[in-house]
Amino acid sequence: MAEKKKKEIQISEAETKYFLTAESLHEEIENRNIEIATKYIELAHPADIAETIEALKFKDALFLFRLGDLEKQRLIFVELTDEKQSEFVDELTLKEISTIVEQLDSDEVTDLFSELDKEKAEEILNTIDRVDTEMIRTQLNFSEGSAGRLMNTDYATVYMNENAYRAISSVRRAARNTEDIYVIYVMDENDSLKGIIKLKDLILANPKTRIQKMMKPIKAIHYNTDQEEVARYFQKYSVVSAPVVDDSGKMIGRITVDDVLNVVQEEATEDIYRLGGVSEEESLTTSLWSSVKHRLIWLNTNLFIALLTASVVSLFEGTIQRIVILASLMPIVAGMGGNAGTQAITIVVRNISTGELTNYNWFAAVRKEFFIGIINGFSVGLVTFTVTMLFRNDIWISIVIGLAMLINLSIAGLVGSVVPLILKFLKIDPAIASSIFVTACTDMFGFFCFLGLASILIK
Amino acid sequence: MAEKKKKEIQISEAETKYFLTAESLHEEIENRNIEIATKYIELAHPADIAETIEALKFKDALFLFRLGDLEKQRLIFVELTDEKQSEFVDELTLKEISTIVEQLDSDEVTDLFSELDKEKAEEILNTIDRVDTEMIRTQLNFSEGSAGRLMNTDYATVYMNENAYRAISSVRRAARNTEDIYVIYVMDENDSLKGIIKLKDLILANPKTRIQKMMKPIKAIHYNTDQEEVARYFQKYSVVSAPVVDDSGKMIGRITVDDVLNVVQEEATEDIYRLGGVSEEESLTTSLWSSVKHRLIWLNTNLFIALLTASVVSLFEGTIQRIVILASLMPIVAGMGGNAGTQAITIVVRNISTGELTNYNWFAAVRKEFFIGIINGFSVGLVTFTVTMLFRNDIWISIVIGLAMLINLSIAGLVGSVVPLILKFLKIDPAIASSIFVTACTDMFGFFCFLGLASILIK
Repeated sequence: MAEKKKKEIQISEAETKYFLTAESLHEEIENRNIEIATKYIELAHPADIAETIEALKFKDALFLFRLGDLEKQRLIFVELTDEKQSEFVDELTLKEISTIVEQLDSDEVTDLFSELDKEKAEEILNTIDRVDTEMIRTQLNFSEGSAGRLMNTDYATVYMNENAYRAISSVRRAARNTEDIYVIYVMDENDSLKGIIKLKDLILANPKTRIQKMMKPIKAIHYNTDQEEVARYFQKYSVVSAPVVDDSGKMIGRITVDDVLNVVQEEATEDIYRLGGVSEEESLTTSLWSSVKHRLIWLNTNLFIALLTASVVSLFEGTIQRIVILASLMPIVAGMGGNAGTQAITIVVRNISTGELTNYNWFAAVRKEFFIGIINGFSVGLVTFTVTMLFRNDIWISIVIGLAMLINLSIAGLVGSVVPLILKFLKIDPAIASSIFVTACTDMFGFFCFLGLASILIK
Repeated sequence: MAEKKKKEIQISEAETKYFLTAESLHEEIENRNIEIATKYIELAHPADIAETIEALKFKDALFLFRLGDLEKQRLIFVELTDEKQSEFVDELTLKEISTIVEQLDSDEVTDLFSELDKEKAEEILNTIDRVDTEMIRTQLNFSEGSAGRLMNTDYATVYMNENAYRAISSVRRAARNTEDIYVIYVMDENDSLKGIIKLKDLILANPKTRIQKMMKPIKAIHYNTDQEEVARYFQKYSVVSAPVVDDSGKMIGRITVDDVLNVVQEEATEDIYRLGGVSEEESLTTSLWSSVKHRLIWLNTNLFIALLTASVVSLFEGTIQRIVILASLMPIVAGMGGNAGTQAITIVVRNISTGELTNYNWFAAVRKEFFIGIINGFSVGLVTFTVTMLFRNDIWISIVIGLAMLINLSIAGLVGSVVPLILKFLKIDPAIASSIFVTACTDMFGFFCFLGLASILIK
């Protein structure tokens, strides 16, 4: 296994040590082997060191972390999970924290501060540079999950009436303070965003050509745009960075693709968790009690629905006592309705999230789900009819279960596709609430339909 | 609504037309208004044109597409969905296709050819340049979903013993044929990858400095690496491109982050679909019959499980006839077990996908899920006991349902976390098969436990 892994990701020979991972080092660090630990902190990639720190006991982690110089500490710190960052903030001295905070990019600071409690945040804010403080306060005003929170405020700009030669000089100056420059933003004399130019095109250009002639148009993102929308922008236009503007169209920051990659991953996790009845705040590292609490909300909601369903069944207790075989068959109808409903929910919810289900094609999607429900209801109904005939040899019971299956699966397709759309229209997240409503429908209707048909048709 | 949208994504004034979307244009295009259609093709962003084309009737789409020059056609073509690309390939003349294909990047070509049937692919391969043909055939040999398929073969390289001045000249030459240069790959005299240098650092550098002194180490990706692993690499190291190497460590291509963004989105959709019992090949545009077929497989598998479950219930038909109230209560126990099991599956499957659940922490995760199961089983069991007492006023039935709930939810936590891990170990995708096994368990065990306890305890 270990050997296979090694083969998959190869390391450029010369600098193998840069990508050292920790496994073999744990013991050395626990024994406070300063020589080896220092070498590791010096040579390994910050992302790998962060992974090591997450795996170490907290005291060992702190020891390792403090061996790095300021720049290294910053690089490692931003790679840590939110939980671990909070732990570090609690444990490091105020001076240590504020020197790290002063080195962070604006989006990284904001991310950190949104995790801290108010008191701790104020305490740190009071120790750091006033200009930085202003900047952090401004960015914290943007709502969570918006473009304003994702952006950072370091980027390179040139003026559209400069020529390429002068523009390169401007970029050189900016480059010293900006970690990544892929694209340069072009402004007019009023500092209003007019377009972009790629760094490589600037280098290729004739030094005398004016920027205006080379720049490409760019669609800017308003600071209040939802991060899901931002992710769609990046996917659609295949860019590595995008400008963020205020109400007046003035550029106030840029979003880079590495942050968007995290957004896409986060949003997907949120959808999966919500569909599965788990809070998006849960992770492998959340405490047992916090997990218990979050999940109980979901389970109790479902219990309420289940009790309602039970009361539907209890209406037919007389019929069940008369034909007891109905008791073993009824969960099949309800359960299959739930499965078919879940399929419809899955397609609709995911395509709402990715932006593929729009105001234009929703009707076609619902119609398709309804037809699928009917066809699969017919097909599954036929199979159930046949199997019931084979094992129970009762034509009326077989007809009832087959018919109930057809009806319940058709309803499941319709409800499974309409409910998420209604929830979306009501601005409720379809991922979180669809399955409750749909399961309630398919369960109650499944039992009602099967037992009702049975009490009418079977004498 | 329309007004709100406009505010969210703003367009740099000067070039509004570049981001025109089609809605208002549909009619003009249907009426073959060549003037307006040509303006649109000239000015709009290829990604927006592609969106328009997807929404138009096919004949209108073809008319619009053919108005673009070759470069524009290529840019639009790569933005189309796989389905639409296939439609175009069927309809365009062989000459039109081969000129487009010759312009595509290597990963785009491979992507296209993997969608075509063998015959059509051969036909096109025979019309294009021999060098390109070789390249396409080579890349098609990499397995689907591997790094080799994702990479493209255009990138900029310099030698480690060059100085910055000479390196910039090399990059200038490469830049003419390479769409995006963010990072330059550094080779030794044997063309073996030694490191990278950012374009901006090259520009900042003293012209006389040797590349070797400025380059940073880089971890290369083997061509056979799974794309999910590739996505994790990009997330961990926050890079915009990464080198792909062959068995001997020679660089054979590079993967760019825009492709990775699609991979992350695709893999998330695959997980969500599979967890919901939908084939990852389904989309809003797949045909009704293909959807029906895929979903029936899932439904029939579930039907089989449901029939097994029914046979468990039928063992207790005597007890149910004696105490008919059990019939309405038994689905509650089974259903709640299913819900709790789904919660555990969701956490475990998602964290396997994102790489957070590893060989080191799986045991802690299972233990936690088991404890959550016990605690929530106790809590939900207590609520169920109380509600049953209130409505049915039967102490023994209330005890039985409370106890069965406790046991079934504990089992659900254990099974819901262990099954995905076992499947992963057996190299079966946990997302696709977990819920079948877990639901089978919680259903059968739920009924067995509840009805079994009832027949023992209630006289």
